[in-house]
Amino acid sequence: MVPLGARSYSIAIGAGLLNDGARWQEAVGSRRVLIVTDDIVAGYYLDRLTETLGDAIEPCVLPAGEAHKTLATAGRVWNRLMDARLARDDLLIALGGGVVGDIAGFAAACYQRGIDYLQVPTTLIAQVDSAVGGKTGVNHPLGKNMIGAFHQPAAVIADIGTLATLPAAEYRAGLAEIIKYGVIADAEFFAWLETHLDALLEQDQAALAHAVGRSCAIKAAIVAADEHEHGRRALLNLGHTFGHAIETGLGHGHWRHGEAVAAGMVMAADFAARLGLMERRDVTRLRDWLIRAGLPTWAPAELQAERILELMAGDKKVRGGRLRLVLPHGIGNAETTADFDRDALGRMLIEGPPDA
Amino acid sequence: MVPLGARSYSIAIGAGLLNDGARWQEAVGSRRVLIVTDDIVAGYYLDRLTETLGDAIEPCVLPAGEAHKTLATAGRVWNRLMDARLARDDLLIALGGGVVGDIAGFAAACYQRGIDYLQVPTTLIAQVDSAVGGKTGVNHPLGKNMIGAFHQPAAVIADIGTLATLPAAEYRAGLAEIIKYGVIADAEFFAWLETHLDALLEQDQAALAHAVGRSCAIKAAIVAADEHEHGRRALLNLGHTFGHAIETGLGHGHWRHGEAVAAGMVMAADFAARLGLMERRDVTRLRDWLIRAGLPTWAPAELQAERILELMAGDKKVRGGRLRLVLPHGIGNAETTADFDRDALGRMLIEGPPDA
Repeated sequence: MVPLGARSYSIAIGAGLLNDGARWQEAVGSRRVLIVTDDIVAGYYLDRLTETLGDAIEPCVLPAGEAHKTLATAGRVWNRLMDARLARDDLLIALGGGVVGDIAGFAAACYQRGIDYLQVPTTLIAQVDSAVGGKTGVNHPLGKNMIGAFHQPAAVIADIGTLATLPAAEYRAGLAEIIKYGVIADAEFFAWLETHLDALLEQDQAALAHAVGRSCAIKAAIVAADEHEHGRRALLNLGHTFGHAIETGLGHGHWRHGEAVAAGMVMAADFAARLGLMERRDVTRLRDWLIRAGLPTWAPAELQAERILELMAGDKKVRGGRLRLVLPHGIGNAETTADFDRDALGRMLIEGPPDA
Repeated sequence: MVPLGARSYSIAIGAGLLNDGARWQEAVGSRRVLIVTDDIVAGYYLDRLTETLGDAIEPCVLPAGEAHKTLATAGRVWNRLMDARLARDDLLIALGGGVVGDIAGFAAACYQRGIDYLQVPTTLIAQVDSAVGGKTGVNHPLGKNMIGAFHQPAAVIADIGTLATLPAAEYRAGLAEIIKYGVIADAEFFAWLETHLDALLEQDQAALAHAVGRSCAIKAAIVAADEHEHGRRALLNLGHTFGHAIETGLGHGHWRHGEAVAAGMVMAADFAARLGLMERRDVTRLRDWLIRAGLPTWAPAELQAERILELMAGDKKVRGGRLRLVLPHGIGNAETTADFDRDALGRMLIEGPPDA
């Protein structure tokens, strides 16, 4: 449950939920429904969901991929909504990964100034992160997620069975966002993840359900405390300022978002250790876990320190002209700060990753 | 003041406010500002505002007119915001009529998931209606205002001196929205409007300030009670379901919105009288006032009853398949209802306006 007063909503997590007719009946009721998905997810799960729903209208199948997360694609969803004459009290369903969820959520946010939608995430990163919290939007040619809205879903239904068809690298990228919750908010969860990584890598359903559930619970608590990111919600961006610089510097699509976040978290942790905020051995614990998960732990050598700094300065999270960073204070705690030595950051980027 | 908790905002009304440097300093502070306006309003008031503001960035001047209230035009504003690298805590100013306010407000709502904006309305209809209440949006080829957001302005600054340059027909169209407030919520204000119409037609500044102020106060109270139009806010749509049918039936741009609302209000009042909800002499008071203001009081004869009914059934305010109408219950009170005899409505449309 994400407790947001009148806009509170439930998060259902489990294997086989796409086939759970009673649950869908409860979520949909007698409303008309437009399913928005992409052409990859549609091949796996669209028929299953439409069968469970019964008589849905012709779904809106978008081209897959971040390159299509544009205003023009949102426009396609609005065209379908208008063609189908969906009313204010009807329902949109976002079936897919983060890109589908962001576009469809944004389309729902702005159609007739906001209609209900369900997040039905089918990737790990969407199940533990993007489907929860109501951030929706599309990219602008000059910046990611620059056009969007806060619009909470009416419910999240995460069928962890769908992760079986996810490419292995996509799955591992999602693990980065899971360990993030341990770092910023829950040392016990971090320790659990250390002992259960192998089970997660094998997609053990019980371990997966616990990891997704705990991740969603931590995110829900943070979102409930700061829905519109005026404060604490920024902690969810641990590793993202470094990570976005990597993604932009390499050109989007070269590294997965979760991979860039993995590297960014270690960079943030290393910087925190340099500032005396975190013990070196905790940096190593984080780094070791990510290595075991098959994820990168530093920006690629081809990105020069100066270029990374320049890209970080252009980040959306810069406020009042000052670069702000989320830095871990040990495991289980983090703070946002703009009060640090820019030169020290530069030195770290020049010196590169510490030896393991 | 529109009381909406943390999103409460003030409404300043007066002559010469565009030159009131202290007020603008207070509203803007040290933030960077992008002014959005159209190419007609820019000719009259852009220099005045930029002088008052001091160093503003290059404004975004849109082509004037409802035909440009599109997603593509909102895209132009986002391009300017991105080019100028405005940050989340910077400010947008909507200088102009309802179209500019709706587009610019929508652009502010979605830029980085919402930045502050000021409504600076320069038409009567914008000053008494569209600038207050946070409804923003653009048209879709298949429907008006179908893509949009609720996004309250940070403040409304209405310089009634700008109305001097408004075409007379535009000014009169705005009067329709003013008398609407009397009908739905304030019999005393209605009576005041009956005795002060000549002063308003002459743009007597004191009378105008009172009429705009009272209209905004009524709208603010209704919006505060029901920001997202789940109930009472729908009363503001008195005359609009008939009115939209007229606008769409004639083709947009043939009648002004306020003209269609004027006719729609009389039609709603006439229907209310037929249902026994309103005394016939109160319908006549409303009709006489609108005639004195130079406004139409019934749909044009060229629109057939069947066509009007068909267009009304397609209105956005139809919920759960049932047509809902706002009907006055005398002067100073109105209710929304879906519980009326469709055949009686058809008969009224066929019979046409009552003799005066």
